[in-house]
Amino acid sequence: MSVLQKILPLRPRPRGFHLITDEILEQLPEIRNVRAGLAHIHILHTSASLTLNENADPTVRMDFESWFSRAVPENASYYRHTTEGADDMPAHLKASLLGSSVLVPVKDGRFLLGTWQGVYLGEHREHGGARRIVVTVIGG
Amino acid sequence: MSVLQKILPLRPRPRGFHLITDEILEQLPEIRNVRAGLAHIHILHTSASLTLNENADPTVRMDFESWFSRAVPENASYYRHTTEGADDMPAHLKASLLGSSVLVPVKDGRFLLGTWQGVYLGEHREHGGARRIVVTVIGG
Amino acid sequence: MSVLQKILPLRPRPRGFHLITDEILEQLPEIRNVRAGLAHIHILHTSASLTLNENADPTVRMDFESWFSRAVPENASYYRHTTEGADDMPAHLKASLLGSSVLVPVKDGRFLLGTWQGVYLGEHREHGGARRIVVTVIGG
Repeated sequence: MSVLQKILPLRPRPRGFHLITDEILEQLPEIRNVRAGLAHIHILHTSASLTLNENADPTVRMDFESWFSRAVPENASYYRHTTEGADDMPAHLKASLLGSSVLVPVKDGRFLLGTWQGVYLGEHREHGGARRIVVTVIGG
Repeated sequence: MSVLQKILPLRPRPRGFHLITDEILEQLPEIRNVRAGLAHIHILHTSASLTLNENADPTVRMDFESWFSRAVPENASYYRHTTEGADDMPAHLKASLLGSSVLVPVKDGRFLLGTWQGVYLGEHREHGGARRIVVTVIGG
Repeated sequence: MSVLQKILPLRPRPRGFHLITDEILEQLPEIRNVRAGLAHIHILHTSASLTLNENADPTVRMDFESWFSRAVPENASYYRHTTEGADDMPAHLKASLLGSSVLVPVKDGRFLLGTWQGVYLGEHREHGGARRIVVTVIGG
């Protein structure tokens, strides 16, 4: 049993939902040595999120952006936290609705996910820039 | 410290929310040997979800189905991912709102949950069939 | 590698969102001995939640309460679980939307969070009373 922990950068992306499974794994060759365990992928920001969903059809990610931007409106009259831009308070709400991290089973050196599961970055700001994640793998 | 990892089937259920704590524990007798740790229960699908909520009154699960099916409508005009049926895109959204996994403390060979907490399967498709979960227990 | 597990009380708070990072850490001096690992903070209730979000401006927490109380209304005509008060069924739904736990990387004896990240308690009942959490830290 051991712990592997790394801080990884993600390249900047526009507002919306993005599949980042491969970008994580490219930076995590050490996972090949883990026979069984858990990988925690955590984003160090409060206006972006991580979630698992469909890794094939890109229209799923487009529909995520459409639904979330309707469910959590900009410029709601009751918002008080408005000084950082119209996309800021909705970004905080979306981040907590979706979550700051995903926890993924690891088996035989690979993520043990369903055939259609991939890791999404939810970039909720117009100009979020390069985000940083912490990956912690516990296993043996 | 050790890792226990098993892939378990769940029996098919209709669309809605279902209490599955006992179905998991029946297939996980090895948990009795874990004095302290964490159990990760992960669903290998993108149109069903896992969450923790009230384990007593079945009307709570009914109200979950009512609220989520209103919050995430079928046939929204802005959906682009529509080829797999009216229940498909809402199922993906509900899966990420609720999450693909729950992480439960383990103490003295049992789930350490609140008196009223149980594991819900959110079955978001009309005909989701038999779902599969991965349970990973890390502890000592 | 070892497991640290403690049940901690939280002091009672009014309905709304509350920053509780310091209240947790004050009761968890043992974390100083963990060089790398994960801390799981789990609430033993189904009408309150834990999430990570902005730790600086208190208006973010106010806007969380405003948005969630609009998104999950009281007294919806379709609720069947109504005997425990108008705030009860919405509290269950909010608890699953936000989640019962957060999982936080631990590095060099401290939570490894982003500069602006803190742990929120979502108190969804009018009179939730003193809540209890289980903290499980796995690491070495």
